[in-house]
Amino acid sequence: MLFSNISILDENFEIKKNMYVGVRSGKIEFVDSRAPKEDYGEVYNGEGKLLVPGFVNTHTHSPMTLLRGYAENLPLDRWLNERVFPFEDKLNCERAYYGTMLSIAEMLSCGTTSFTDMYFFGDGVMKAVIESKAKINFGRSIVSFDDGRIENNERFKEGVYLTEKYHNAENGRIKIDLSLHAEYTNTLSAIEQFGEYAKGRGQIVQIHLSETQSEHENCKKKYGKTPARLFYDAGVMDSPCVFAHCVWVEDGDIELLREKGASVAHCPASNLKLGSGICDVYKLLGRGVNVGIGTDSAASNNALDIMREMYLCALLPKGVNHRADIVGAKDVLKMATVNGYKSQGRNDCGVIKKGFCADLAVIDLRSVNMCPEFDIAGNLVYSAGKQNVLMTMVDGRVLYRNGEFTTIDIEKIKAGANKAARETENEVYAL
Amino acid sequence: MLFSNISILDENFEIKKNMYVGVRSGKIEFVDSRAPKEDYGEVYNGEGKLLVPGFVNTHTHSPMTLLRGYAENLPLDRWLNERVFPFEDKLNCERAYYGTMLSIAEMLSCGTTSFTDMYFFGDGVMKAVIESKAKINFGRSIVSFDDGRIENNERFKEGVYLTEKYHNAENGRIKIDLSLHAEYTNTLSAIEQFGEYAKGRGQIVQIHLSETQSEHENCKKKYGKTPARLFYDAGVMDSPCVFAHCVWVEDGDIELLREKGASVAHCPASNLKLGSGICDVYKLLGRGVNVGIGTDSAASNNALDIMREMYLCALLPKGVNHRADIVGAKDVLKMATVNGYKSQGRNDCGVIKKGFCADLAVIDLRSVNMCPEFDIAGNLVYSAGKQNVLMTMVDGRVLYRNGEFTTIDIEKIKAGANKAARETENEVYAL
Repeated sequence: MLFSNISILDENFEIKKNMYVGVRSGKIEFVDSRAPKEDYGEVYNGEGKLLVPGFVNTHTHSPMTLLRGYAENLPLDRWLNERVFPFEDKLNCERAYYGTMLSIAEMLSCGTTSFTDMYFFGDGVMKAVIESKAKINFGRSIVSFDDGRIENNERFKEGVYLTEKYHNAENGRIKIDLSLHAEYTNTLSAIEQFGEYAKGRGQIVQIHLSETQSEHENCKKKYGKTPARLFYDAGVMDSPCVFAHCVWVEDGDIELLREKGASVAHCPASNLKLGSGICDVYKLLGRGVNVGIGTDSAASNNALDIMREMYLCALLPKGVNHRADIVGAKDVLKMATVNGYKSQGRNDCGVIKKGFCADLAVIDLRSVNMCPEFDIAGNLVYSAGKQNVLMTMVDGRVLYRNGEFTTIDIEKIKAGANKAARETENEVYAL
Repeated sequence: MLFSNISILDENFEIKKNMYVGVRSGKIEFVDSRAPKEDYGEVYNGEGKLLVPGFVNTHTHSPMTLLRGYAENLPLDRWLNERVFPFEDKLNCERAYYGTMLSIAEMLSCGTTSFTDMYFFGDGVMKAVIESKAKINFGRSIVSFDDGRIENNERFKEGVYLTEKYHNAENGRIKIDLSLHAEYTNTLSAIEQFGEYAKGRGQIVQIHLSETQSEHENCKKKYGKTPARLFYDAGVMDSPCVFAHCVWVEDGDIELLREKGASVAHCPASNLKLGSGICDVYKLLGRGVNVGIGTDSAASNNALDIMREMYLCALLPKGVNHRADIVGAKDVLKMATVNGYKSQGRNDCGVIKKGFCADLAVIDLRSVNMCPEFDIAGNLVYSAGKQNVLMTMVDGRVLYRNGEFTTIDIEKIKAGANKAARETENEVYAL
């Protein structure tokens, strides 16, 4: 496809107008202000449109979209124990497939081209990803209760199975990550064994970190150190980590993240909705930590709308720090694109540049809410919404265009997801 | 029109399914679970749809949509003095008309049926409102620099002119409010004269209150009392007031608001974006103050999207208070509808009930982001966006439906608004 006469968000997060971008074999092969001589197939008229690198959702649990609205206005412990856990206990691979498909559809409609997912029912999730042609980093997170060998942990074994079966499958569109659920859900022995196991494998490590104050403080009471320091000391951070939340990390923790080149998956909506607090993303960025943006699951958001999340990312630091001049639109666009891909270990994605993966989204600049055009990047972050997303392309393949999905039978998926949600609820009630 | 077999949000903010709602002569004339015998004209198939009272934007400056993206990432004083004021100085009635039309279009597309506006170029704003058939409370705010009679203040005179010409015009769709811009932009003498003047007129009074910490603290230094106490003592609160922002109000101020039945226009996005802070809406609601929701202008938001604002309203108190169980979806829907209308002095609007104004919005429940349907009100507040708004009706007249405006030539308005913005910018540069 040739995007013709289109505005683009360039690698410096500046807007360049009247550009030509040629895509072939899943890659961006041409970027110039003059039309190419080569033929790139369909010519897409880019007038009044903006081409951006696709957005990355750096933390979610996609099958949990089945729980949207199922657990409202509850404190975290009741949310988990009374609602989420009993529901999840009745899920199965097929239901997880429908939840994931619904999530992927929603994410594509927001311009999201890749997502980092931590969940179980890996085969169900993989089926959805393979069918939909979405891009994923998936981790089956480990929870441990004893000091035995982690090789005997069923969750660990599932992770090994998934890695063997799916890692780097679909031309690299699928990556299997390693994952510890969190400090408070694992024994020190398991964490240390995991650190040793992960070392040198090159797989990304997904972990929930200092999401709530009680989690953070309890760790300090138990071990005399913060969760970040604990993971650092256990060698976990010697692997490339993406830490979700980081609401309660301290200055010393931030230094550890920076030193090890770890990434943070900042989930502002979920952290607000569950009453966890507000992550100090301004400080993290200032200290040079790589920060991406995550929606977390629809059970605590309740949408997988990365554009709404970008808006929160830009607004919250200003309100909390009482400074209007921090965390601007370009900072947020960097977080949502190239930083996100970096956290996934995908360094050939997230920039509109020759040789990079053609993971792209097209934004309508002619909508009422995008007028006038004083600051296109500002309009994108502060005023745009998913209704302005015209197209989403992953590895050069159009997966969403003008409200239609090319790889997803959306009516079938909605019906299947509704049925899965209803049946699961009924089974929980029957207990 | 007869909405047939539709879900509705009832006066208790509960969802009732399979309802029939008949609209005639601008009013809701029929609400029942069985179809009416009377003919209400067009039958609207409500299957998979939710009928809600239209949303009220309780604080904006609609012509300022021309400044969207014009003043990004600046502290409030530079935002005002270097960008907003010079731009506004070059506006005129025609430009204000285009800005207002653009704003009305955006608000209608979000399900907003009525808005409270504080600005100048009243004739331009009125032209837009009359053409578009939108509903407005408009105030020409007073700024004063001396202790002379306010009857000689040009802004005051404009307000009198607008009241005589437009108050209760268009079958009451237009109301002219009284307005003081703020404490810090007026002399004590003007505030006291205004309080005396407003008394007994029955017009709503719009005022910016304790938006920033410096405004609040400077007032205390100057007068030995808070801005709220100052307005109270000057008799201003003896009239029905709507106070925008209230980020820095103190416990004693909240008691004054409650005692006098004043309303608060809570503007969470603008307060965050300008670095003003976060209004404690949980406390205000708990003390029995009537709180509505406002977007403020597109120069500090940057959208006039009441649904995004509702989402912030629900999330921020949870995050700030570290409690997931406060300010639920129903609280927010009440703020966005009946509370908003109450702040406008429109007690016959905001509820789906016989005899009330037919100010309504239709929400698509079959969208990907609204599935599954465990909690429809929750989905509306936490997951819906303007892309889910199918129809907006004001006084029984459909103004927006399936992406089309019935009273606004949107291409002409976008072109006019772009031209107005560009020309104004050029005139500012030429200085």
